[in-house]
Amino acid sequence: MKATDSASTGSAELESREALFRALFAPRGVALYGASGDATKNTARPQRYLRKHGYTGLVAPINRGRREVLGVAAYPSLAEAPGEIDQAFIMVPPADVPAACEECFARGVPVVTIFTDGFGETGAAGREIEARLVERARGAGVRLLGPNSIGLISTAPPTALSVNAVLELDRLPVGPLGVVSQSGSLIGAFLSRGAARGIGFSRLVSVGNEADLSVAELVELLVDDAQTQAILLFLETLREPGRIAHAARRAFDAGKPVIAYKLGRSRAGVELAKSHTGAIAGDDRAVDAFLRACGVLRVHSFEALIETAHLVIGQHPPQRKRVAMMTTTGGGAALVADPIGAAGIDVVAPPADVAEAIRAVGVRVGDSPLIDLTLAGARGNVYGPVLEALLASDHCDAVVAAVGSSGQFHPQVAVEPILRAHAARPDKPLAVFIAPEAQTSLELLAKNGVAAFRTPESCADALAAFFAWRAPRRPPPMPDNGRSDALRAVLFGEDPLQPERLFAALGVPQTPAQWLRDPAEPIDCAFPVAIKIASADIAHKIEVGGVVLNLKTARSAAAAAKRMLERVSAAQPHARIDGVIAASMQEGLGEAILGYRVDPQVGPLVLVGAGGTLAELYRDVSLRPAPVTLDEARAMIDEVRGFAPLAGYRNAPRGDLGALAQAIVAFSGLVALPEVHEAEINPLIVKAEGEGVIGVDALLVLREGAPRDGPAT
Amino acid sequence: MKATDSASTGSAELESREALFRALFAPRGVALYGASGDATKNTARPQRYLRKHGYTGLVAPINRGRREVLGVAAYPSLAEAPGEIDQAFIMVPPADVPAACEECFARGVPVVTIFTDGFGETGAAGREIEARLVERARGAGVRLLGPNSIGLISTAPPTALSVNAVLELDRLPVGPLGVVSQSGSLIGAFLSRGAARGIGFSRLVSVGNEADLSVAELVELLVDDAQTQAILLFLETLREPGRIAHAARRAFDAGKPVIAYKLGRSRAGVELAKSHTGAIAGDDRAVDAFLRACGVLRVHSFEALIETAHLVIGQHPPQRKRVAMMTTTGGGAALVADPIGAAGIDVVAPPADVAEAIRAVGVRVGDSPLIDLTLAGARGNVYGPVLEALLASDHCDAVVAAVGSSGQFHPQVAVEPILRAHAARPDKPLAVFIAPEAQTSLELLAKNGVAAFRTPESCADALAAFFAWRAPRRPPPMPDNGRSDALRAVLFGEDPLQPERLFAALGVPQTPAQWLRDPAEPIDCAFPVAIKIASADIAHKIEVGGVVLNLKTARSAAAAAKRMLERVSAAQPHARIDGVIAASMQEGLGEAILGYRVDPQVGPLVLVGAGGTLAELYRDVSLRPAPVTLDEARAMIDEVRGFAPLAGYRNAPRGDLGALAQAIVAFSGLVALPEVHEAEINPLIVKAEGEGVIGVDALLVLREGAPRDGPAT
Repeated sequence: MKATDSASTGSAELESREALFRALFAPRGVALYGASGDATKNTARPQRYLRKHGYTGLVAPINRGRREVLGVAAYPSLAEAPGEIDQAFIMVPPADVPAACEECFARGVPVVTIFTDGFGETGAAGREIEARLVERARGAGVRLLGPNSIGLISTAPPTALSVNAVLELDRLPVGPLGVVSQSGSLIGAFLSRGAARGIGFSRLVSVGNEADLSVAELVELLVDDAQTQAILLFLETLREPGRIAHAARRAFDAGKPVIAYKLGRSRAGVELAKSHTGAIAGDDRAVDAFLRACGVLRVHSFEALIETAHLVIGQHPPQRKRVAMMTTTGGGAALVADPIGAAGIDVVAPPADVAEAIRAVGVRVGDSPLIDLTLAGARGNVYGPVLEALLASDHCDAVVAAVGSSGQFHPQVAVEPILRAHAARPDKPLAVFIAPEAQTSLELLAKNGVAAFRTPESCADALAAFFAWRAPRRPPPMPDNGRSDALRAVLFGEDPLQPERLFAALGVPQTPAQWLRDPAEPIDCAFPVAIKIASADIAHKIEVGGVVLNLKTARSAAAAAKRMLERVSAAQPHARIDGVIAASMQEGLGEAILGYRVDPQVGPLVLVGAGGTLAELYRDVSLRPAPVTLDEARAMIDEVRGFAPLAGYRNAPRGDLGALAQAIVAFSGLVALPEVHEAEINPLIVKAEGEGVIGVDALLVLREGAPRDGPAT
Repeated sequence: MKATDSASTGSAELESREALFRALFAPRGVALYGASGDATKNTARPQRYLRKHGYTGLVAPINRGRREVLGVAAYPSLAEAPGEIDQAFIMVPPADVPAACEECFARGVPVVTIFTDGFGETGAAGREIEARLVERARGAGVRLLGPNSIGLISTAPPTALSVNAVLELDRLPVGPLGVVSQSGSLIGAFLSRGAARGIGFSRLVSVGNEADLSVAELVELLVDDAQTQAILLFLETLREPGRIAHAARRAFDAGKPVIAYKLGRSRAGVELAKSHTGAIAGDDRAVDAFLRACGVLRVHSFEALIETAHLVIGQHPPQRKRVAMMTTTGGGAALVADPIGAAGIDVVAPPADVAEAIRAVGVRVGDSPLIDLTLAGARGNVYGPVLEALLASDHCDAVVAAVGSSGQFHPQVAVEPILRAHAARPDKPLAVFIAPEAQTSLELLAKNGVAAFRTPESCADALAAFFAWRAPRRPPPMPDNGRSDALRAVLFGEDPLQPERLFAALGVPQTPAQWLRDPAEPIDCAFPVAIKIASADIAHKIEVGGVVLNLKTARSAAAAAKRMLERVSAAQPHARIDGVIAASMQEGLGEAILGYRVDPQVGPLVLVGAGGTLAELYRDVSLRPAPVTLDEARAMIDEVRGFAPLAGYRNAPRGDLGALAQAIVAFSGLVALPEVHEAEINPLIVKAEGEGVIGVDALLVLREGAPRDGPAT
């Protein structure tokens, strides 16, 4: 995995990383391919924006036909341009991009940023050209950003190298937020919304198609950037999950929170899944589990992406979910309390000593956990002491301060006391929501490092992300290789019971089962049995009459098997049918589904859910990147509502959830077999406490292209 | 029900309604009780704000000790004040409120608005004082607003009668939105956020404790207000559901959409519920079903409450859920498309002829339903024709136009073409989202009646509300009284099988059951049977061992009943136990829960859900105000995921969902018996198609204080 390679940061690598950083964000000179002399064109913008925002390096328009572009000396080719050119920005038509790149490769320009689109995002032909460009660049020791990148912006020293019209702004807002975005146009939304609010940025990068420089590598660069204190990701998809996990871990260790917004509801890929696991997990559930395991804070509203940073910079993942809340507007506070309550966060009342301190300044502390200052009169000498008392107290893990109309016209009432209290107690996470329109106050707060929210929903979103925040998971060691070889020995073969054998070898007990090539063969496993059709070509056995349950005698089983073969052959004349499987029926207290899948975005995942139909109807499942530890498996079980009856809910008899947790751990060990794409046990019968679990139906899907004839031994 | 009374709008009533409207929103004179001469005090504000915002009527401070307040002549009592005083605004301490009110009653001031708090919201004593005030006011023909109202604001002609500091604003934003709010401080958030965005208001009213003038009555007044085109409600709770439903229906018929934000996750009341129905329905699910049935659009974010109006003013509830989407920012459009997709709204591609028209201006129409103008270049002569083509086409029920960086600095590219296209095609709902900070463009759009959204989430919220919008339900006629009397005859009595008899009489078949006062009594109903303890004092029978299932013989049933009586008596020595119930077991394809409840906020509701534990674990239920029609019952069944297997999902045998629908209708007829507070059948067994449904356990909770000894006959 790439991630592991780059973990060993040798000094040579560090040096080359620093060189890359400088070439990207502080280039000594920039060559502009395709810079237009027509000021109304988009391609004229970068030259103008660079100067407008104070770029002091060399700007060299490259133009075969002109000696000058908008008053700046132009060169017919890069070779003729003088000075140290650290980055080229390419805006020429798609057909001319390779030639321009070759000039850069020839000169050894460290970074080539390609604005031009029409490559990998358009289909196979485009992907091929893109791959060739990357190959050529690697050969020349040159790094590519894009294609289809709108460019990048560095605020100090200023390098505004982008066609994004947001750069019409008078001034770049300088600050501690680094942005990596898969959407180029949203760079403008970040910058303009931040500028209007006193929220500043260090670097903003549009990664385009990520042909070479990826989100993960840019995160790595920003971790080492002294000007960046938090890293914001706008994601449309995920690539290189291992490297992202590694980079996020480095960021966490460096005290730089990573906050992500991920577009999420695409069904692509989900429909292709062959197992229930695939259909249920979906892209978004998988992404959620992955980002959480990486220690990334995920928000679900765009503004929360820029507003959350100050809530978490300098903080640690909280141990509990307790918020103290004070306000000068009951309704405004309720707007925040309502959604955070729904997210499972407790608004807590102050303990006696804190309540006493609050009463001392004339504020009534009642039954409600909300501390409402309205009656005490909204005055600065009330707001400040109450907030300081809450920030200093251990009874809460974060404080919400809501501000009413004073936020707009009377900053001395609440906003200024908030600034003072935060400065005195910066160690307690603080979220401020101002109910009226109050741009000036929001700006004042942001500029002083206070997390201030324009809408109650983004405030609640940020708090939910904060309380869901966990330290990045240190994945358990991979199962050892010797064992993998033993497993692999049962991975291949023509036996339709091979999935059952593999899962049993992993350590998940399977019900006794038998492959009957001929329905008349005697059945050895205990009755009653279920009979299933044996055919790799038939995915949904029930729907073709390929499953009969609860056969109590050998005679009835044989008859059922015979009828089944006739029925299924008639229904599916082209399917290859390998007889039937007989399997002992199992009784238990409940049913689970246990799944494994290599997700196209985030890699190997393990899933557990309430059994069968329930899992599908209610998507009542829990997911984690595989492999998992026993503690993680237990936490997964706790997340599945449908297991409540097995955990003693309403005095129901307890199921063997300990054995279920062990089965999850064992099943997640499939990660050691890269040949496995999807695997599922459904149902896995959960028996009474102490009696274990046992699988009664197994499914295994190998990776496409995996050798079917077994490993070379 | 009050609602029905006020439906008959006689001319006298209309006149008195008009007089009330004038006294509230355009008073000829205003008396200010407790107006302070200290300009820094809140109580000095109304006098200043009235003048600042152009109120031209008489302002009369009432002050026993002063002849003048801040330069205005003051009077020691109301009796001495000259002129026509249509409204008094009371800011004196709580203890002085009754005396001030009495002066107003004596003079016959039509409206008394009480800002002072400390009444009904503080407990029983406060409620009593409040009730007495209302009684005295009614006697005097005076209406009360509040107590605990921050006042009201009318923009044209201006009457800014409030202590809310938002009135420091330079100018009141005049416009078509009428606001009724249960939170006073949020009046400031409405007004200031609107003012900054070009969104204007007609009237804003803080209703406080609603001791007399209620949300419902204010909605009625705004329906008749020519300056109000949409009515926005900020709700903390619901009172008078019948009257709200009636007012909302009038608003709908007048073409004035009602848009509501309701705080929702309070668990109060839910925990008191005795049945599963109560626990599952919760406040918020009930409120949701109620508001939908009223034809009210419910939004879930605060800004959507002020931004949604122009999307729906002049529109009708849509027939389908299809949105066309165009953009100059792919990422910005995705921010809206992602949440609306999750809300079940389809983003649809244009049909061939529309696609042709779009291609004609140089825009690529690809596989994605999103029409992205980025490649065509963001120019005004592109944006306009594409938007007009979409607005004119029948393939969609609404159009989303997303705008990128041009929204901030180049209005001619998209914003101005949007204005022209909307003016040309005002009949198609249009939502505009601007990705960057773009206050000026948002203002321009709002002032021209275009729904423009500051965040993608509020845009999606508004669209979800629009697509969930339905014409107000015309409730089916109440079951006739003769039948009610017959039902009532089985409502009372000491027989523990009385709930079963009532439900059977309603038309929901019940399993044969028998009350055994002595466990040795012979059992007549078919075996196998279940045995249940008969005790009105034991709510959770299973947990005390009060249920035994599947007894196959008379002997085993008698033995089980004997042991049960011993066991339960030992466990619950103080419970009154009336023997046991024997009931025939029933088999079917699935289980449902059927519930009925008089909700404290929204009144009678009927609920259906997937049976037993499932309903509780997954809250997989559908709710409607009772009674319901057969069509509504069918729609409810469609909303319950757990019924999918009974509807032929994955070739499972079909259950008798027709009979289930009839059972829902019949059960909802409980509304004819006001004595019934909660009722539940759980489980109701759903048999195979054509074989009906049958209840196997029944629960009935009468309203507290309902006569237990039956009606006077």
